[in-house]
Amino acid sequence: MSSAAHPRSLRSLVTHCGALLKGDDSVLLSGIASIASAKTGDLVFAEDEVKLDQALRSQATAVIAGEFAAAARLSKPTLIVRNPKLAFAQAAALFGQAESREGNDESAQIHLSAQIGEHTSIGPGVVIDEHCQIGNGTSIGANTVIGAKVIIGQNCRIGPNVTVNSGTELGDRVVVQAGTVLGSTGFGYVRDESGRYQLFPQIGRLLIEDDVDIGANCTIDRGALDATVIHRGAKIDNMVHVGHNVEIGEDVVIAAQTGISGSCRIGNGAVIGGQIGIGDHVEIEAGVILGSGSGVLSHKVVRGKGIVYWGTPARPLKQYLKELATLSRLSQKRISQKKEK
Amino acid sequence: MSSAAHPRSLRSLVTHCGALLKGDDSVLLSGIASIASAKTGDLVFAEDEVKLDQALRSQATAVIAGEFAAAARLSKPTLIVRNPKLAFAQAAALFGQAESREGNDESAQIHLSAQIGEHTSIGPGVVIDEHCQIGNGTSIGANTVIGAKVIIGQNCRIGPNVTVNSGTELGDRVVVQAGTVLGSTGFGYVRDESGRYQLFPQIGRLLIEDDVDIGANCTIDRGALDATVIHRGAKIDNMVHVGHNVEIGEDVVIAAQTGISGSCRIGNGAVIGGQIGIGDHVEIEAGVILGSGSGVLSHKVVRGKGIVYWGTPARPLKQYLKELATLSRLSQKRISQKKEK
Amino acid sequence: MSSAAHPRSLRSLVTHCGALLKGDDSVLLSGIASIASAKTGDLVFAEDEVKLDQALRSQATAVIAGEFAAAARLSKPTLIVRNPKLAFAQAAALFGQAESREGNDESAQIHLSAQIGEHTSIGPGVVIDEHCQIGNGTSIGANTVIGAKVIIGQNCRIGPNVTVNSGTELGDRVVVQAGTVLGSTGFGYVRDESGRYQLFPQIGRLLIEDDVDIGANCTIDRGALDATVIHRGAKIDNMVHVGHNVEIGEDVVIAAQTGISGSCRIGNGAVIGGQIGIGDHVEIEAGVILGSGSGVLSHKVVRGKGIVYWGTPARPLKQYLKELATLSRLSQKRISQKKEK
Repeated sequence: MSSAAHPRSLRSLVTHCGALLKGDDSVLLSGIASIASAKTGDLVFAEDEVKLDQALRSQATAVIAGEFAAAARLSKPTLIVRNPKLAFAQAAALFGQAESREGNDESAQIHLSAQIGEHTSIGPGVVIDEHCQIGNGTSIGANTVIGAKVIIGQNCRIGPNVTVNSGTELGDRVVVQAGTVLGSTGFGYVRDESGRYQLFPQIGRLLIEDDVDIGANCTIDRGALDATVIHRGAKIDNMVHVGHNVEIGEDVVIAAQTGISGSCRIGNGAVIGGQIGIGDHVEIEAGVILGSGSGVLSHKVVRGKGIVYWGTPARPLKQYLKELATLSRLSQKRISQKKEK
Repeated sequence: MSSAAHPRSLRSLVTHCGALLKGDDSVLLSGIASIASAKTGDLVFAEDEVKLDQALRSQATAVIAGEFAAAARLSKPTLIVRNPKLAFAQAAALFGQAESREGNDESAQIHLSAQIGEHTSIGPGVVIDEHCQIGNGTSIGANTVIGAKVIIGQNCRIGPNVTVNSGTELGDRVVVQAGTVLGSTGFGYVRDESGRYQLFPQIGRLLIEDDVDIGANCTIDRGALDATVIHRGAKIDNMVHVGHNVEIGEDVVIAAQTGISGSCRIGNGAVIGGQIGIGDHVEIEAGVILGSGSGVLSHKVVRGKGIVYWGTPARPLKQYLKELATLSRLSQKRISQKKEK
Repeated sequence: MSSAAHPRSLRSLVTHCGALLKGDDSVLLSGIASIASAKTGDLVFAEDEVKLDQALRSQATAVIAGEFAAAARLSKPTLIVRNPKLAFAQAAALFGQAESREGNDESAQIHLSAQIGEHTSIGPGVVIDEHCQIGNGTSIGANTVIGAKVIIGQNCRIGPNVTVNSGTELGDRVVVQAGTVLGSTGFGYVRDESGRYQLFPQIGRLLIEDDVDIGANCTIDRGALDATVIHRGAKIDNMVHVGHNVEIGEDVVIAAQTGISGSCRIGNGAVIGGQIGIGDHVEIEAGVILGSGSGVLSHKVVRGKGIVYWGTPARPLKQYLKELATLSRLSQKRISQKKEK
């Protein structure tokens, strides 16, 4: 499989990727591919010598390789870079740009009071409510619903069937995949004397800064009285739930199906695995790494840049592994004792 | 951030909240807010003396406080109540009513046989299939799809991009947030001799009683042959999955990302945390409290009003905590022994 | 509750279910039902003698029972089969066929270049992008969005509010429930020197073979450079997440809220419970059974047809249960010791 786009010379990638080029820089590239599926015109990448060998024997036209390749015999034009996967991703972004479309569909229902930028693409069946602002170059997928007073920045890509509830603000280059709900009502209730629940007001906003990516079928609640905030560059996988009043730091990554309860704060650069459950009012310090499937109890503070936590309740990885080993050893011992009798 | 609405005198809240008022009852309020964000015209609440002090020094116009404030020196008009958070929520509900809208969008496709009540708000792109009934005062968000023979009561609020499959019945004042799927086909298969799966019939219904709230991107399956039932007042957070034939009692709360397998029964007033997994045919007795992240094995009965369970398999909290402590102690002991050698 | 359809004689079911018939084969059946809710005209099933007794005393018109019933005194026409639940499911499928509808709604926006088969049903508000192919007899629910170059086979049933991203291919008789997102962008990033994340290209496809069922609000990512593949007959429950480059074998079942990280391979006939987390690059061998709530670490191979695994990290059930018992025993011992002091 390869991306389809207008051909681009290998030379044009050199500056973009900060690469050293070996071989013919005039070759034309039409896309990127995996080594296994590469065809003529494709660019591939190799992170080690085995992959480089496969890449050179593939049908690809050019290769991006790590510095280890500087001394190698290269039968194809090759860009040599420090981080070949990163350079490949950067090159791919250039080819990917060809996909974008322009034009607002006639069937979209855009309120007269909404301000729509230039070069936008608004799909069929989209509904944009009153006093919204949509920035230049932003695309909105079919049947997406944008509530009143929503502000969306420039060059955002909002997928189909997305719901953006009223008052939500998105920065520039924000990506939101299909089916995601932004600015939903948070889950806060007060129980009365009769045991019935009364909704606590959920009138805060949701603010999403620049360069945030949000996967498919996520739910991100608005604040209760104040705001839920996702800071610049955070990357959120599919089906992640973020509760009200949460603050997620810059360049945080959160893998699929993780749930973050209300009023949590996650520091810059933290790495949050998949299917993690984080109780309310938790603070995860900057740079902490939480292993997939962990659970963090309400009101805890998880400390230490680069420290890996795992298990429920989440504890340092080393301790968790020791406990697993201890339990396994003790239960085996018991089996041996039984056998001896 | 504060809710916007028509101004309302503080006096008018007194009866509604059952409060004792200290100070000028003629002040006009335009909304509610957090203490930090309050502006002139806002009502705030304080649950303790520290918060009360902050509230009195904020820009808010009036305060709701607990009985502890009866003897305090109050520089702002203050409603004194037993449960200030509850009173605040009740007051907020009054202001929130200003948000509602009326009118059915021309682009909604409503089957001729459908019966639509008065004062409804049906958004753009909504599809309502044959023989549906929509009660008075109910609103249906844009691009929501309502299958055949669905009955929705009065004053319900159905969000955008919701799917309500055929035959589902909702009572009055039911809230369903964006992206939720009601009445989906349950996951029941029979394996044949060749190892292939044949769907077991999933032709039952989904019944949702009055005052149930359902979050965003949930899935609630219809019954297989009989019905799935959610009783009055249950509150369900985002991304909760409820399987076929489940019965959820009155005033049950279920936090985000919990999954309830087929044929479970959850008693009235039970409190179910987030990311819990409940196997099929489980019975959770009335008033049980299940901690977030727990797992309950199929066919188990979890007993005891007010008893807290935790872990997988779920066990009484006390026992679970003891086991965690034992494991931690044993693995530390082993480390000390190693060091001694 | 019973399914509504054109009446069908009991005789016509005999061949379909491979059954031995006792009693009057000319009775007319109008649907299937549970024993409790059966009315005249309904077919019910009984897997044991207690159920058979209830079935014969119910208002049902005919019964499907196991071979144990061959010698019983039968007061109603009864089909005797090896697997009554399977036969009931097969019979139900016949009645269910009456539900299907035909016709493409005028409000659907179908690109001129799209090829639409015969006897399709395309609902209101559906958007079908350029160069799509939709097979004969396929139905597409209201407000569903089908991206460019999507190929959907024959007799598929795609629910409402579904998103099928560009390039996805579905075989025949594929069922996709409401709110599901197919072919979403996978979660793959490369971190640059400044700590920011750059999306790794996600330009692969999603291939879904014949007879696959996918529940509501699932997300299945396209491949990064190659393809994500779901093989024939796999059955996937609600809110399941499948990452990029995953390969799921034939007749695999996956229960609700399970998440499968990128590049996993799941062998034919494996049974994957609910709320399981599977790390990236895991291989689950054919026929393995993974208990609900388990976690499998990245790069693990889980071996053995018919072997049951449980816990996090997933281990053979026997070992897991022993460890649970050991931990419980040790923590109780400690309590007794304390009491003795």
